Amino acid sequence: MILNAEDAQQRALAFKALADPNRLRLLSIVKAGSDGGTCVCDLTEPLDLGQPTVSHHLKILVDAGLLHREKRGTWAYYSLVPGALEQTAGLLASL
Amino acid sequence: MILNAEDAQQRALAFKALADPNRLRLLSIVKAGSDGGTCVCDLTEPLDLGQPTVSHHLKILVDAGLLHREKRGTWAYYSLVPGALEQTAGLLASL
Repeated sequence: MILNAEDAQQRALAFKALADPNRLRLLSIVKAGSDGGTCVCDLTEPLDLGQPTVSHHLKILVDAGLLHREKRGTWAYYSLVPGALEQTAGLLASL
Repeated sequence: MILNAEDAQQRALAFKALADPNRLRLLSIVKAGSDGGTCVCDLTEPLDLGQPTVSHHLKILVDAGLLHREKRGTWAYYSLVPGALEQTAGLLASL
């Protein structure tokens, strides 16, 4: 059965969020981090990117529903949305 | 553990191939088609796209290792590379 246009658009957005090496690396760091979340202040140094670039990529991952963002004091903390990576993987199985 | 830069680059390419609604729809048609492959002549009409656009998208899917292309007579036939979608899904699990 052919995927309808609207559904295809929705799924393509999820893959677009993953289609960047820096975003994949950010996800891997957050995934390896504590359940309480990883401070944005710990995400710039390992990637050797500036804060605005890292914030740009993090926003795309949050908008795609892959990361959860929580402001605590001065800093924002990022954690994986439970099940989101598995759900995206499932989009491939159900093509 | 943080994904290294080279590995991240490689994985991002696979997701880039999937980050387009027309390519997802092409994959869904080929997946639903016969094991012997789907003729390119049957791929333009359902998507309402011109032949050059469809060929462009198919080339990206072949280059990403998701589709196999075989020329038979006048037409090219496309089939899923066995296990390729599952392998791409696995890239998410192993981030």
